Amino acid sequence: MNLKEFASRLALSQTTVSRALSGYPEVKPATRDRVLKAALEFGYRPNTSALGLATGRVGAIGIVFRGGGQFGPHTSEFMGGLGTRLQQDEVDILVSTVDSSEAELNTYRRLAASKRVDAVILHSPFTDDPRIALLTSLRLPFIVHGRTQAPGEFGWLDIDNFDAIRQATSHLLDLGHRRIAFLNGHRGRVFADHRHEGYQTALAAHGIAVDPLMSGNGEFTDEMGFRLMQGFLALEQRPTAVLAGSMMSALGAMRAIRVSGLKVGDDISLIAHDDVFPYISPDNLVPTLSTTRSSIRAAGARIAEMVLELLQGTPASTLREVWPVELVIRNSTGVCPSDL
Amino acid sequence: MNLKEFASRLALSQTTVSRALSGYPEVKPATRDRVLKAALEFGYRPNTSALGLATGRVGAIGIVFRGGGQFGPHTSEFMGGLGTRLQQDEVDILVSTVDSSEAELNTYRRLAASKRVDAVILHSPFTDDPRIALLTSLRLPFIVHGRTQAPGEFGWLDIDNFDAIRQATSHLLDLGHRRIAFLNGHRGRVFADHRHEGYQTALAAHGIAVDPLMSGNGEFTDEMGFRLMQGFLALEQRPTAVLAGSMMSALGAMRAIRVSGLKVGDDISLIAHDDVFPYISPDNLVPTLSTTRSSIRAAGARIAEMVLELLQGTPASTLREVWPVELVIRNSTGVCPSDL
Repeated sequence: MNLKEFASRLALSQTTVSRALSGYPEVKPATRDRVLKAALEFGYRPNTSALGLATGRVGAIGIVFRGGGQFGPHTSEFMGGLGTRLQQDEVDILVSTVDSSEAELNTYRRLAASKRVDAVILHSPFTDDPRIALLTSLRLPFIVHGRTQAPGEFGWLDIDNFDAIRQATSHLLDLGHRRIAFLNGHRGRVFADHRHEGYQTALAAHGIAVDPLMSGNGEFTDEMGFRLMQGFLALEQRPTAVLAGSMMSALGAMRAIRVSGLKVGDDISLIAHDDVFPYISPDNLVPTLSTTRSSIRAAGARIAEMVLELLQGTPASTLREVWPVELVIRNSTGVCPSDL
Repeated sequence: MNLKEFASRLALSQTTVSRALSGYPEVKPATRDRVLKAALEFGYRPNTSALGLATGRVGAIGIVFRGGGQFGPHTSEFMGGLGTRLQQDEVDILVSTVDSSEAELNTYRRLAASKRVDAVILHSPFTDDPRIALLTSLRLPFIVHGRTQAPGEFGWLDIDNFDAIRQATSHLLDLGHRRIAFLNGHRGRVFADHRHEGYQTALAAHGIAVDPLMSGNGEFTDEMGFRLMQGFLALEQRPTAVLAGSMMSALGAMRAIRVSGLKVGDDISLIAHDDVFPYISPDNLVPTLSTTRSSIRAAGARIAEMVLELLQGTPASTLREVWPVELVIRNSTGVCPSDL
């Protein structure tokens, strides 16, 4: 049975049937139910290209992750935000997993060639990111989570990583701290570079140079926070304050401080970046943790919306947002002890 | 340009071209590259139904999550396992987000009607799960992560939750503990019910009945662990040992114990279930944490494999696995203090 025959049995237009099945533009729930039930009853199985003829869409947004390290706590929160917004339009997320940057580029080629997605979301950008030119040449619409200096007209959403860490560092300086350590992400990732610049800028305003011994980079794990913090504490002149890039590295840093017999908030101040994971809250830690806060789930939801706007014809160059990050002071920060 | 014309330009069979583009059965990498480049060059865009004609597959596996609570740390690990295995066959994961069980059932109807996926993965089953009958009637192949008593011939993979908690409880009983508290998942979820049975069975072997005051249920968050543990510690006869259902609830329980002035391992023994998150390791906690260990990432990878086997014709009834769970003793468990 083809679309025409199926639609005529239901006394509906082919467009209405296609739209009901694709879940795209608004169709009355009762009509959609009727069409779905009839499709099952008559064994009618449209193919996605037939849907595409009616709506020009396949109803899926692509996102590519590296199999090894990129499925982390941030992934599920971001996907939760994306999904919660996309479900309102019955749009799915097509997740592809790759093991190298070359495989990632090939995946975008495959997604474009097989018309599996209407657009993709690019994340974890590098300063000069080769994926931008490829997606542009493939004419595959995309929105970037983060920023990149690669040329082109494309939309993106980023948090103000520079100002988040500049503010946090300045606050510690105002409390009298001069030796401030920093647990940062991998060099070359734009967010980590922006955070480093914010740290450097705040220190420079007090005439302080970055001390490479008090700055470490890595994946944000509990272990990374623990090991790097142990290293900082072993320095002849240990830091009196520390900035952690995530709640996970902060947990490790807090434990290293506790194990060394020092107290967070009294002996060493700590500020962490909080992506607002629903299962670990800075308000519940002891002491409560001062943070720079920005919900990665909210960013996912907004990026989903930006993708839908892009597909509806909004120019990419107008879809650019930098979200400010709030500094929330709790009990893990205090005046620099005078004896240090 | 249609498939026939495109294939003849490349001097390849239509089947080879389709397979190269769909990424399904093995095609030499060099051939695949050549086809992909030519597709871009000639602007050839196959639709998925054309691929379907050649391979009978769309090359995607579906999974549905609830937008609110189901995107958690377990989600990204499980997806990481799925994706890492599926990428070897260039199969993608189609993620749909829903906000109710009715919407979830409608999503399976939509996925089946629009032929968007070759199979789905069903997770977080209930004892009598209505999704089984629906997927069966839709003829949408599926594998269950977990178990359910719903009738039917279907494949599933589950860990031995009963025995994990039975073993852990028995170990604590062997150490002399008699008041053992339990932080469990939501009632009605099969895994939580199995764990409760394991707990009850071990206690019963020592003539001990479950004390409802020492057993709590909820989502596995840091806060849940903290609040419930505080409640247990406020009991007239507090527990001397506690079982936590996840690393997240264990972190909260450890903090509640520490805040109350007691020491984990000395005053109160703790065993947690560890899904092996790469960013929080029981070996790094202080004290190191005894666990029942089973990698949810490995389960995801195996379930991906089972889905691929199912699609290749392996009978569903032979695709059933229960994974044993190891009990790993570290420093958070000790002999019951004699004064309690």
